[in-house]
Amino acid sequence: MTQNIQVYNTLSRKKEKFVPINKSHVGMYVCGPTLYGPPHLGHARPSVVFDVIYRYLLHVGYKVRYVKNITDVGHLENDADAGEDKIAKKARVEQLEPMEVVQKYTLIYHENMAKLNVLPPTIEPRASGHIIEQINMVEEILKNGYAYVANGSVYFDVEKYNQDHPYGQLSGRKVEDLLSETRTLDGQEEKRNSADFALWKKASPEHIMRWPSPWSDGFPGWHIECSAMSTKYLGQEFDIHGGGMDLLFPHHECEIAQSVGSGGKAPVKYWLHNNMITINGKKMGKSLGNFINLDEFFSGNHKLLEQAYSAMTIRFFMLQAHYGGTLDFSNEGLKAAEKGLNRILDAHKVLITLKPNGEGVDIQPTKEACYKAMNDDFNTPIVLASIFDMVKIINSIHKNLQFINEKNLTLLKTTFETFVFEILGLKNSETKNTSTDISNEIMNVLIDLRKEAKRAKNFTLSDSIRDHLAKIGVTLKDSREGTSWEVKS
Amino acid sequence: MTQNIQVYNTLSRKKEKFVPINKSHVGMYVCGPTLYGPPHLGHARPSVVFDVIYRYLLHVGYKVRYVKNITDVGHLENDADAGEDKIAKKARVEQLEPMEVVQKYTLIYHENMAKLNVLPPTIEPRASGHIIEQINMVEEILKNGYAYVANGSVYFDVEKYNQDHPYGQLSGRKVEDLLSETRTLDGQEEKRNSADFALWKKASPEHIMRWPSPWSDGFPGWHIECSAMSTKYLGQEFDIHGGGMDLLFPHHECEIAQSVGSGGKAPVKYWLHNNMITINGKKMGKSLGNFINLDEFFSGNHKLLEQAYSAMTIRFFMLQAHYGGTLDFSNEGLKAAEKGLNRILDAHKVLITLKPNGEGVDIQPTKEACYKAMNDDFNTPIVLASIFDMVKIINSIHKNLQFINEKNLTLLKTTFETFVFEILGLKNSETKNTSTDISNEIMNVLIDLRKEAKRAKNFTLSDSIRDHLAKIGVTLKDSREGTSWEVKS
Repeated sequence: MTQNIQVYNTLSRKKEKFVPINKSHVGMYVCGPTLYGPPHLGHARPSVVFDVIYRYLLHVGYKVRYVKNITDVGHLENDADAGEDKIAKKARVEQLEPMEVVQKYTLIYHENMAKLNVLPPTIEPRASGHIIEQINMVEEILKNGYAYVANGSVYFDVEKYNQDHPYGQLSGRKVEDLLSETRTLDGQEEKRNSADFALWKKASPEHIMRWPSPWSDGFPGWHIECSAMSTKYLGQEFDIHGGGMDLLFPHHECEIAQSVGSGGKAPVKYWLHNNMITINGKKMGKSLGNFINLDEFFSGNHKLLEQAYSAMTIRFFMLQAHYGGTLDFSNEGLKAAEKGLNRILDAHKVLITLKPNGEGVDIQPTKEACYKAMNDDFNTPIVLASIFDMVKIINSIHKNLQFINEKNLTLLKTTFETFVFEILGLKNSETKNTSTDISNEIMNVLIDLRKEAKRAKNFTLSDSIRDHLAKIGVTLKDSREGTSWEVKS
Repeated sequence: MTQNIQVYNTLSRKKEKFVPINKSHVGMYVCGPTLYGPPHLGHARPSVVFDVIYRYLLHVGYKVRYVKNITDVGHLENDADAGEDKIAKKARVEQLEPMEVVQKYTLIYHENMAKLNVLPPTIEPRASGHIIEQINMVEEILKNGYAYVANGSVYFDVEKYNQDHPYGQLSGRKVEDLLSETRTLDGQEEKRNSADFALWKKASPEHIMRWPSPWSDGFPGWHIECSAMSTKYLGQEFDIHGGGMDLLFPHHECEIAQSVGSGGKAPVKYWLHNNMITINGKKMGKSLGNFINLDEFFSGNHKLLEQAYSAMTIRFFMLQAHYGGTLDFSNEGLKAAEKGLNRILDAHKVLITLKPNGEGVDIQPTKEACYKAMNDDFNTPIVLASIFDMVKIINSIHKNLQFINEKNLTLLKTTFETFVFEILGLKNSETKNTSTDISNEIMNVLIDLRKEAKRAKNFTLSDSIRDHLAKIGVTLKDSREGTSWEVKS
């Protein structure tokens, strides 16, 4: 590959040169959603972050096998080893079969991801579809002595494992501290130590999702699915494992222990973690009333939102921060993002009309700055700074305040479009519906006609225009700034 | 439920009153696609047929659990018990992991289904995600003596089964004939009888998709997945099993034998089969060169196609025939369907502008005719005849040749929209995603406004529309067929 990429590896706590295990092939695993409710910002950030990384790896020429799972079983409330399964609980509340719940929210999730222009992974495995692989891995861990059976459940023995392999390296936790912690959760009396975690849980009689196993009719612990599925599709050792920082401990720490404890090998070369999202400076939480679904952002239908924000505004907003930093959502920030995004998209409309107007600007340094930023741990805010430099250049050339020759104009177009559309994955609008200039222009004719009709108090005509448009799914929105339109999909 | 539905049950070879096992809840299983290539007409017909049935059951008030599987393992070439796995072969050819092949074609399949306005099922289980359930069912069949193990593979013993339960009832095959048939396929020497079928196949060393089982590392036979997954999600006995007539034998016959052979109960109350598709009077086949993918229909990019046909034209075309009859695709037929569909959609545009104009038409008989047709084994061509009756009425009222009061106009709107949009699942355009579609629709609004203005002799407005459009480079062309438009670049 021509690019020298550096990535911040959570495991080593430093930036490292990215060298894939198999030269031109990259294996990447990213923890996907537990689908028991509508997708929210906490789903959107890792999706967008690792989408950009995936797009960049493809762009520089790697063949990427990108595995992103769907958790449809085993994820218990409070992310702990006791309590009700999140999906089974929702199924009970909604009076659906658990797999109906998963299907319902998977459809919404895929729809939301498409709106955010997040490319689908190359494999999207489900936890419930890999019970055998999980049981096999638990058997291996038991055989190696790093787990024990208690009342039909199987637990990972952290103390025993830590005698042979260091536990806690990824998260930086001291195993002594973990082992000395007193038990804080009920229903975990079967564990020898509170640091131990479930690999298999015996199902209580009322538990719906259950499979036979050598130990009990039960279900896998939450952590084992990712180890089993990453091993199956990417091998015992693969390049990149991504996910939110909230998953670092215990989830990812447990993944390492499970892989080492079964196959003897540390599974992941580069651990990448995106940081968390806050809303108006506060942690997002259902109990705090600041939990905003993606569809609520897209419609503006939430008490904390002053307006609707398009999926592209959300995406752009996320790219304005480096993935390793926290990100605070506020109406001010989102409105600023909307303006910034529009400046870029407007500049593109100008760009495609530009003609060479003389000798002057040199685009090569800007292009190099874009690659340098992406190579530096996928630093999208720096890429955006270079893109805004190009926006200024485009507007100056348009006004004949700067000059560009044919070669540089071609380079400007290529660089701008490659980074804005291909790598950052921005697009002209949330849906492709409003994208073309011609649609916009025809709509403006209609909007003008309606304005004239209203001015002439011909409300039959102005209403007729609105009704005609409603029939084809186009909604008009009047505001002080004028009339905008959108297409209901 | 208020409607008295009759369905043609393949099992009894007659129409029967539809009475679900659990009063208001309906369980429906439909055989989904084996995803190793782009979806074609053979995928579209059962999808559309059972979509309409699903929509009608929902409309009349049933709560429907609709399970439609995705076959991602075990479907061997020639639909037989020997040969390479269809997906594994494609994976080898495309140099992908089998699950990457499945993901690739699942995405296209879902996209195509959405274009056809086919509602997603409430559960979409995958064969590879239910290996344990399949193994359990094979164990039950073995325990009951209706199967035998040979070299790590397990086969269903048709002769033995037939001594206790009749085999062949669904397809009308005589078991004596089946048993006396000589072996025609190689690689099946393990079978006691050529009528026997594989429940579990031992994997050859190079076979990628494999799981441990009590008999061998291997993979399930093709038929067992549907039995295992329908039992899991719908119970041992459920209401409707659908699929193409090509699956009647051996697939569905084997499903019955597997369910009876394991749980002792005939699984399905009503077996519904859609008939086959021909192209220009010939069977569709890859070797015949008349294999047209759905995307090829949508783009018109196939030597046999004279033009592109929208997904809605394809859907409409299919609804013009009863699902139990064969359907021949031809350019003539599709063009006629396109015209018919447009007549209906145009009539709807008129319908929503209609105002009561006096006493006259009685819509109640038309409404009743629509329900009667749907109740009669979902007879969509008869429903369409009634819809065309409504089209005539709409156009006559529009021209003041017929008269309608407010009550009947409301009934006309409700009946028309319920059957056209909600039940038959037609919609105004193939997709609202492409820019040309939306431009077209917006332009049609303008063209309609101009037409209305001209009719009202408001030439100031009609000229204003023409001038506004000219300013943005859009030229209108009036002809006897109507007004078309083009953009000058």
